[in-house]
Amino acid sequence: MRTSVATVCLSGTLEEKLAAAAAAGFDGVEIFENDLIASVSSPEEIRRRVADLGLTIDLYQPFRDAEGAPPHRFAAVERRFRAKLDLMGRLGADTILICSSVASDTINDDALAAGQLRRLAELAAERRIRIAYEALAWGRHVSTWEHSWEIVRRADHHALGLCLDSFHVLSHTDEYAEIADLPGDRIFFLQLADAPRLDMDVLQWSRHHRLFPLQGRLDLTGFTRAVLDAGYSGPLSLEVFNDVFRQSDPHRTAVDARRSLIALNDALTPAPALSGIAFAELGVDAETGPQLETVLRALGFAHTGQHRSKAVQLWEQGTARILLNSGDSRTAIRAFALESTDPAASAARAAELLATPLPRRRRQSEADLTAVAAPDGTEIFFCRGEHWLGDFLTTGEDRTRGTGLSIDHLSLAQPFDRYDEAALFYRSVLGLTDDEAGEFAAPFGLVRTLAVRNADRRVRLALSVPLLRRGDWAPAVPHPQSLTLLTDDLARTAAGVETVPVPGNYYDDLDARTDLPAELRDTVRKLGALHDQDEHGHYLQLFTPVLGNRVFLEIVQRVGGYRGYGFANDPVRMAAHRAQRLVSRA
Amino acid sequence: MRTSVATVCLSGTLEEKLAAAAAAGFDGVEIFENDLIASVSSPEEIRRRVADLGLTIDLYQPFRDAEGAPPHRFAAVERRFRAKLDLMGRLGADTILICSSVASDTINDDALAAGQLRRLAELAAERRIRIAYEALAWGRHVSTWEHSWEIVRRADHHALGLCLDSFHVLSHTDEYAEIADLPGDRIFFLQLADAPRLDMDVLQWSRHHRLFPLQGRLDLTGFTRAVLDAGYSGPLSLEVFNDVFRQSDPHRTAVDARRSLIALNDALTPAPALSGIAFAELGVDAETGPQLETVLRALGFAHTGQHRSKAVQLWEQGTARILLNSGDSRTAIRAFALESTDPAASAARAAELLATPLPRRRRQSEADLTAVAAPDGTEIFFCRGEHWLGDFLTTGEDRTRGTGLSIDHLSLAQPFDRYDEAALFYRSVLGLTDDEAGEFAAPFGLVRTLAVRNADRRVRLALSVPLLRRGDWAPAVPHPQSLTLLTDDLARTAAGVETVPVPGNYYDDLDARTDLPAELRDTVRKLGALHDQDEHGHYLQLFTPVLGNRVFLEIVQRVGGYRGYGFANDPVRMAAHRAQRLVSRA
Repeated sequence: MRTSVATVCLSGTLEEKLAAAAAAGFDGVEIFENDLIASVSSPEEIRRRVADLGLTIDLYQPFRDAEGAPPHRFAAVERRFRAKLDLMGRLGADTILICSSVASDTINDDALAAGQLRRLAELAAERRIRIAYEALAWGRHVSTWEHSWEIVRRADHHALGLCLDSFHVLSHTDEYAEIADLPGDRIFFLQLADAPRLDMDVLQWSRHHRLFPLQGRLDLTGFTRAVLDAGYSGPLSLEVFNDVFRQSDPHRTAVDARRSLIALNDALTPAPALSGIAFAELGVDAETGPQLETVLRALGFAHTGQHRSKAVQLWEQGTARILLNSGDSRTAIRAFALESTDPAASAARAAELLATPLPRRRRQSEADLTAVAAPDGTEIFFCRGEHWLGDFLTTGEDRTRGTGLSIDHLSLAQPFDRYDEAALFYRSVLGLTDDEAGEFAAPFGLVRTLAVRNADRRVRLALSVPLLRRGDWAPAVPHPQSLTLLTDDLARTAAGVETVPVPGNYYDDLDARTDLPAELRDTVRKLGALHDQDEHGHYLQLFTPVLGNRVFLEIVQRVGGYRGYGFANDPVRMAAHRAQRLVSRA
Repeated sequence: MRTSVATVCLSGTLEEKLAAAAAAGFDGVEIFENDLIASVSSPEEIRRRVADLGLTIDLYQPFRDAEGAPPHRFAAVERRFRAKLDLMGRLGADTILICSSVASDTINDDALAAGQLRRLAELAAERRIRIAYEALAWGRHVSTWEHSWEIVRRADHHALGLCLDSFHVLSHTDEYAEIADLPGDRIFFLQLADAPRLDMDVLQWSRHHRLFPLQGRLDLTGFTRAVLDAGYSGPLSLEVFNDVFRQSDPHRTAVDARRSLIALNDALTPAPALSGIAFAELGVDAETGPQLETVLRALGFAHTGQHRSKAVQLWEQGTARILLNSGDSRTAIRAFALESTDPAASAARAAELLATPLPRRRRQSEADLTAVAAPDGTEIFFCRGEHWLGDFLTTGEDRTRGTGLSIDHLSLAQPFDRYDEAALFYRSVLGLTDDEAGEFAAPFGLVRTLAVRNADRRVRLALSVPLLRRGDWAPAVPHPQSLTLLTDDLARTAAGVETVPVPGNYYDDLDARTDLPAELRDTVRKLGALHDQDEHGHYLQLFTPVLGNRVFLEIVQRVGGYRGYGFANDPVRMAAHRAQRLVSRA
């Protein structure tokens, strides 16, 4: 299956876009007209550049306001079209996209439209160029794939076929099954774009919020299958207008883009089952390390192991294992390991999905853990069983004091440019599914959150990102990461741990808006915990101060099968962290 | 007229918001419940803080899902309401907002709703608290001001009145004139918010895109007048949910907010007529200064004056006057001067609208130019006649070589957080009106542009901002400012000036899509100019390289009364600048 990407998906000049598309492994590109017009390279130079990069030009686009033109205006359309055919000859491109007319003077007459497109197809055929005709969702008279097909059928010219675009179809209908009945050789081009479901003007939705396949909520899988079932044999090509991608490093975006097509195609090593988070590794600096050790001790962790060759400590409590890596200068959740039924297959799938493999400097006695980098740079290891523990020398410390902790989930603040990429990464590489999603007003701006999990909820990750890239205001409060530990007895586990005070106003409001059993209400307030509930049960949350300006630990209890993450409490937690920071500075 | 601001308009913790509101001169605040809940201060501490800052708490809000509750649920509503009345007693707040219910089980029965609100009003009245009832635009059954008034009328309790919110009314109707016929003493509160016209789900529109009055497109002036005509005597209070304001320095946002109310009230010194841009002042560094001098020489400018006491040169060509100030380390358009019929009145109006006055170090012989700072820091001088030229010693250089240039407009790239503030600033302080507006896809992301002008177009400014705050990608291409010079003879003026090459692809496309007279078409291509046209005429644009990474000059000719700014060409210009930068580095 050939893959292609429209230059409009990527940031930069045309030359930068082409380089990024090639580096990410695309087979071809769609040249978006505005990119070409602004390019200082001549069409011949672009042609050479494309060939040198091992790419092909699969489409030139768009040609607008062609069909349905009032007859007196059609001469100008023809003149403009001939000029673009000249250009395509110089570029060496053989397919041009004509999108349905939006001009206010467009005539609603299928016979006229078909005749005009036939005329343009005759001109194109003389140059061995094909026209792919596409119904824009906001086309003046032609806005559905059925209508565009009716006009193509009427025009009846071998150089005129359809361009199908998942966004234009799925933005206004789920009725696409009949696409599979089209003659596949009349589908000249397939453009793919996903999108979140937004209740807004379709033109604005399309121009600003498209996403790569499997990043949004449209049924890209079913749609693509229908087109392929029809017998379409051209490239799967991405045409995504997205405000963030337009500003982001095109090399990164191009990898994200191609990953989406690989995941969509799904001719992949199946994702092995995951059964838990084997460990989380925190980078610590000289100041944070001892602070974190104090917190871990208070939580009943024991320092049970020391790495054979690196400055890495192993701490254990119940099934929770935390590594403290002081070989790093920044405090961060730098890695986590997932229990996989088949680590090699997990790693193979990750590689197929363009995850960056991380070199392991393996010493003779060390376990060979395969690792890949997540979009935000976090290292993900795959392991099976406890073989990796052999890398650690036993300190002899006793771990019986534990209260049976486990790692509940990790909360990973994402870089602004990489949020949708991260969601796709975790869904496709790890086979995780979406869990709770939210958007809330935090003290320093809106934050969007998405949790992903495996089938039995033993692997859970929470991703979050500000709605707008942050500026200078409130620079001392970054967006911290956290490691959440699960206990069956929050009071016992947290006794002696320094947690951040929750404001009394929070409890007054909690009492006003909920009808909790008196005992639970008293427990929550006495513990100084945050509370959430869903139809399954209750959630109690405590959290430590932010360490090293970057990481805090959260200790939670899930009462009666609560399934969420307490996102609704995040603004209160963030304000409490902010207040504590101000106090500790004073 | 008392002014108030909802804490939700501002970024930060509650304490930071209160400080910002007070510093900007507001009389009162609306306490937004979530801000209070997350605050570490007790209600009593907040009460003291508010009083210490010279503020009052004009509203506590919102109380949700009260009226229309199924009877079995109303006991919980009452309990919750009593808790909030307790809280308001501690806060010393005397008015609570109840917004119309959105809960799915809300019963559509005005008699029930009125009865329930009457019951809550009885409870409130016992504490001398009033309820202001507001129809949310997305309320389940009550979504219009008429409906909310019908229920208030039916409930017939002295402690129950209306809250009117301009967004909730104007987002779905222009029919608000009858508000003026309401009994003013039953309007307990007035919330003001403007917004751009967006075709999207009203809840999302409201939560993310509200603006301060006169920053958007709703008829805030007419609406406010209707409410005041009814006899409303409470504060004008702002309730603006805006993603950018939520992230921006609250002190700056609060000033912007209060300016909007001052402008709306318009009890101001009238804006004196402006008649032109007297001069533009460019800061130059050691490298840029000589480069700019070379460009100015090539354009026929003469170095006619030298400031008596500062490192500032005066350059003149035709009526265009440019100052080069080498007493600054950054290259930028640091100031411009406007010809005003009454400079003192211009400055007085600016001060009334909270513009930051700039101190002038005046020497004995220097003209006393009043100056204020625009939101982006650009200094704006007001002057009349040529008195200020007396500050410059004549160099004796001859200016007869000129080709009759004038300053056409200035293009000022705005800081991301200050775009809407800047638009309001120029409209209100200088009395400018909106001209061309646009949004275009530039090589490194989308850019939004707004031009403002005076009545006879002798003062024109173009403001622009990226749609999203920029990140690290393409850091070497900031968003440059420019100074546009107008000529009647572009060929003659630009002869010998180094201008940036426009790609051949641009001309091929221009020829394809337009039907320009052959002579004009040849001229444009020969000059290497960009071209635009409107119903009045044509526009030819040339531009210099970006100097000092920040400023370029543009030379334009308006043929036949063209009125625009050529915004559509900006992507081509930006790509050309990018390409030249790469070449000049190589």
